[in-house]
Amino acid sequence: MRVRNKPWAGDFIKAHPEIIIPNPEEYKGNWQKLFGNDHPLHIEVGSGKGQFITGMALQNPDINYLGIELFDSVIVKAAEKVIAAGTPENVRLLLINGADLEKYFTKNDVDRLYLNFSDPWPKSRHAKRRLTHESFLKIYESILVDEGEIHFKTDNRGLFEYSLVSVSHYGMLLNKVSLDLHVEMPEDNVMTEYEEKFSAKGQPIYRLEAQYQLKK
Amino acid sequence: MRVRNKPWAGDFIKAHPEIIIPNPEEYKGNWQKLFGNDHPLHIEVGSGKGQFITGMALQNPDINYLGIELFDSVIVKAAEKVIAAGTPENVRLLLINGADLEKYFTKNDVDRLYLNFSDPWPKSRHAKRRLTHESFLKIYESILVDEGEIHFKTDNRGLFEYSLVSVSHYGMLLNKVSLDLHVEMPEDNVMTEYEEKFSAKGQPIYRLEAQYQLKK
Repeated sequence: MRVRNKPWAGDFIKAHPEIIIPNPEEYKGNWQKLFGNDHPLHIEVGSGKGQFITGMALQNPDINYLGIELFDSVIVKAAEKVIAAGTPENVRLLLINGADLEKYFTKNDVDRLYLNFSDPWPKSRHAKRRLTHESFLKIYESILVDEGEIHFKTDNRGLFEYSLVSVSHYGMLLNKVSLDLHVEMPEDNVMTEYEEKFSAKGQPIYRLEAQYQLKK
Repeated sequence: MRVRNKPWAGDFIKAHPEIIIPNPEEYKGNWQKLFGNDHPLHIEVGSGKGQFITGMALQNPDINYLGIELFDSVIVKAAEKVIAAGTPENVRLLLINGADLEKYFTKNDVDRLYLNFSDPWPKSRHAKRRLTHESFLKIYESILVDEGEIHFKTDNRGLFEYSLVSVSHYGMLLNKVSLDLHVEMPEDNVMTEYEEKFSAKGQPIYRLEAQYQLKK
């Protein structure tokens, strides 16, 4: 995503601690405390402008959602979207780096993890930055429940090919694969901003569900 | 593939025992005898009109190839192609059913198995007929070398999605996946008749390489 500098972003973030949680490390191992219930927790790593996570929260009131975003100028757009949706009680945002998830989450904290339209990092020398690289799959495993799932969507063919091979070599099971999601659009599909834009151009959207397996 | 009745096919097949092997069960466990050398053996299940298997044989003289085809009216087209190529010594054809492979091959007989543009059998109730169904993956494993590979190409999105999930659940590793083979066409790609036709229309060709894992 192109990130524009927004000098006012810092002030906006400070002004909305009820949405962009200022002290996420305090909830490690105890995210129920934040939401005031013990519903399942689903997180999106790289939540961008927040249409997906907000839409999911509205669609599934019995699931808690956390949108995780690295850029302050982007997370403010997501916060605006949460506010516009009436600030549902089951969605919050974290301004943190996906590589640092283990600082804020411990094993079994997370029931499902979403990756949507992640940066493809097409150059081979940047493969380690792709959010489906082995090093990230390891981090996700360390915070998900046993046999937890990753749900991944992208319009980028190269990233999708890479991700299929990466999750396979990590020992994950592919449970669902769609190579053109919008041909038989699932009723419950919540579109991201990118997804709306790219699918409107007729480009295929790729999707997979991959599940961790218990270590033998 | 549409199969036309060709009453003369039986006579043609009998007239060419040097290409369409009349007694394949005799070579079970000993295919070196047919080829007169101990080169690796690669087989294509569903070889159709034979362009792929003949092209591969010409490209790789140090590998032996067997094209396996169920329909006599189709295998004669493949035999004509082998003859037109000068009857290379490293390619032969078998008129047998892919479901019966274990009658003709035993463990370690086959070094690699190709599936190209297999019948998609789109209806769920026909899933068992798809050549990447679990029951076929089991047969292939029983005749391949340890950690043997399947190389699979298709233009059919549904069959490809199904196959990715099927090989994953069988415990195979995905080594390569391409969702649009012809964008960065591998130099050594040999096209089938179908592949030429479909890719000329701009339709994507999907490809995967999946590898069996040693049982623990």
